Amino acid sequence: MIYLDHNATTPVDPAVADKMSWFLREHFGNPSSLYPIGRKVKEILNEARERVAAALGADRGEIYFTGSGTESDNFAVFGVMNALPERNELVISSIEHPAVLESAKYLEKTGVRVTYLPVDPYGTVDLEALRDSLTPRTALVSVMHASNEIGTIQPLQRICQIAHERGVPVHTDAVQTFGKIDIDVRKLGCDLLTVSAHKIYGPKGVGALYVKKGTSIHPYLHGGHQERRLRAGTENTAGIVGFGEAVRVYEERGKKDRPRIERLAEALKKGIEERIPRVRFNGHPGTRIKSTLNFAFPGLEAEAILLSLATKEIYVSTGSACSEESEEVSHVLLAIGLRPEIARSSVRISLGRSNSDEDVAVVLRELPEIIERLRKITAFDPED
Amino acid sequence: MIYLDHNATTPVDPAVADKMSWFLREHFGNPSSLYPIGRKVKEILNEARERVAAALGADRGEIYFTGSGTESDNFAVFGVMNALPERNELVISSIEHPAVLESAKYLEKTGVRVTYLPVDPYGTVDLEALRDSLTPRTALVSVMHASNEIGTIQPLQRICQIAHERGVPVHTDAVQTFGKIDIDVRKLGCDLLTVSAHKIYGPKGVGALYVKKGTSIHPYLHGGHQERRLRAGTENTAGIVGFGEAVRVYEERGKKDRPRIERLAEALKKGIEERIPRVRFNGHPGTRIKSTLNFAFPGLEAEAILLSLATKEIYVSTGSACSEESEEVSHVLLAIGLRPEIARSSVRISLGRSNSDEDVAVVLRELPEIIERLRKITAFDPED
Repeated sequence: MIYLDHNATTPVDPAVADKMSWFLREHFGNPSSLYPIGRKVKEILNEARERVAAALGADRGEIYFTGSGTESDNFAVFGVMNALPERNELVISSIEHPAVLESAKYLEKTGVRVTYLPVDPYGTVDLEALRDSLTPRTALVSVMHASNEIGTIQPLQRICQIAHERGVPVHTDAVQTFGKIDIDVRKLGCDLLTVSAHKIYGPKGVGALYVKKGTSIHPYLHGGHQERRLRAGTENTAGIVGFGEAVRVYEERGKKDRPRIERLAEALKKGIEERIPRVRFNGHPGTRIKSTLNFAFPGLEAEAILLSLATKEIYVSTGSACSEESEEVSHVLLAIGLRPEIARSSVRISLGRSNSDEDVAVVLRELPEIIERLRKITAFDPED
Repeated sequence: MIYLDHNATTPVDPAVADKMSWFLREHFGNPSSLYPIGRKVKEILNEARERVAAALGADRGEIYFTGSGTESDNFAVFGVMNALPERNELVISSIEHPAVLESAKYLEKTGVRVTYLPVDPYGTVDLEALRDSLTPRTALVSVMHASNEIGTIQPLQRICQIAHERGVPVHTDAVQTFGKIDIDVRKLGCDLLTVSAHKIYGPKGVGALYVKKGTSIHPYLHGGHQERRLRAGTENTAGIVGFGEAVRVYEERGKKDRPRIERLAEALKKGIEERIPRVRFNGHPGTRIKSTLNFAFPGLEAEAILLSLATKEIYVSTGSACSEESEEVSHVLLAIGLRPEIARSSVRISLGRSNSDEDVAVVLRELPEIIERLRKITAFDPED
């Protein structure tokens, strides 16, 4: 198997699986309980919290564990909007992950005015549009750190500066950057930042939200006093422990492996562009998560390519796994100006720790053949 | 260690830990992905869904996995209220779990009219008050199946009948009944029902909401198309697999073990009442989860009892783990008419699979001594 969908999810690191297996057997206490077996679990959770905080340049007290990156995004968007009822405007980019986009659309139905910032053909947010969008009634700006589909990294420092000049807090979904580029919340300047464990070789079902000390936010899940009263519900203890371990592994080994993965991606990109005629690269040539490659194969349907590759046990995707089952055309690819038929021909290849030089060689052998074969049997070719 | 806090959380069954460990190592695919390793995970999740559904008498398509019982409760309450904007009244009991209670209080601040149904001294909801509370503007009735603190089982069938006569859907938090008494959603007649894995010897961080086919409900977590578009966010796959296994173990072994646990609880209750003077039993004498015992020890502080027992490695609680760290007096015990100082003297003992006759014998030896000693050193005794 050649797994090239690391932006959708990553294999659980064996050290993470080991640690979770140990924890599941040894520690069942409820971290809210006052007696030792509960206290001990609370301690273990705080070690994980410390690890996540340190990796982001945050304080431990600024990290809130959640059930997913999606929950963190909902928590940030609804939590800040609800905490600032006198402001009913929200600014997001037009290429946000569905977790932010659908939250915004839902709020829109309740009377919130949402501005969807346009992006240029590389997927970079228009900063002039951001400036123009801000009003005294803007509660929050939410712009993702990097696109899950095309990898473009946003100028977040400048976005934060512009928003902060107008007194508006900034949330960023950093699910796709955590573990791929360095993140320092103080340098970025953001007020809220979302991360997820299963994109950094940790388990599914656990995320975190960084909330800068002093940020106005309401809980989104209401109930008990967990997470300093800001996120109710008994914690996914084993998941959080796995998250902490995934961060430890990243700091110890993952960081050093980044240049290798980027080199593989670069070789794959170059090889595809050399070997396949009329392929079109979607995304930013430079300011990009290097391991994310998105290509349009004009005239073809991405799903046909995906399924052909799958028969060779090569796994790529048509874009966000979160909307893969739908027939919708990627809103990200439309936002960078692609025609729907070109967007529909686009495939995302995302590399990670599991990949090798051999994987790249196999893909460079198989993919051109598949594209050529599919093109032969496809009657319609819009580029002809 | 003698663990007597099974209502707070339960030890993960070794079979559950094994299955999760296996899954974490073998299956990392994203269930939303179209290729085989994603599809396989989706299949495994649906096996778990089938198990949970069967245990509740529901159809597989009526089960939505969430990140906790708390999330299920929030999903039910906010989801139904949001789906019925023309109705802005909510009816809950005054002894709900914080996950429902705090959701209701939050909605109250946004203009929703909330009725808090009173309960009798045994903790049973007043059905006349329910009848009186319902109006054409009532969107939802939410009454827990049984109290986490005192174990009282509510007359849910009648509650559903009364609400349905007025066209109002009913949600019930069954977190404390699932695995302790038989649940059949069709017999109960409820429209929404919350369960949680970690109360039935499964992992923390996974819950489910039963939503009867045809019920009007909005998603509460917005984003991708997971859970038939009703609950966004990559699923806690390992947790869901663990939940399914916990249900399998319950059906195979747990159900048969219930009479033994109830017998132990009965012996403990009888022994405490015989051996400790001026103890007061809180809750319903008959219509109760038999494994839940709640006693007031007038004149004492529950925390002192809890800590004294903890020095003997006997673990009980002062009530809901979800609010244990606060100084608040239990709203449940106040609602059944206890004076605050009696409520503050109350201890919850909840038995489960881990307990034995020997445990009961040890507690019946240690607890009377502890109470006697504490009473000697406590100056104030309101019963004198």
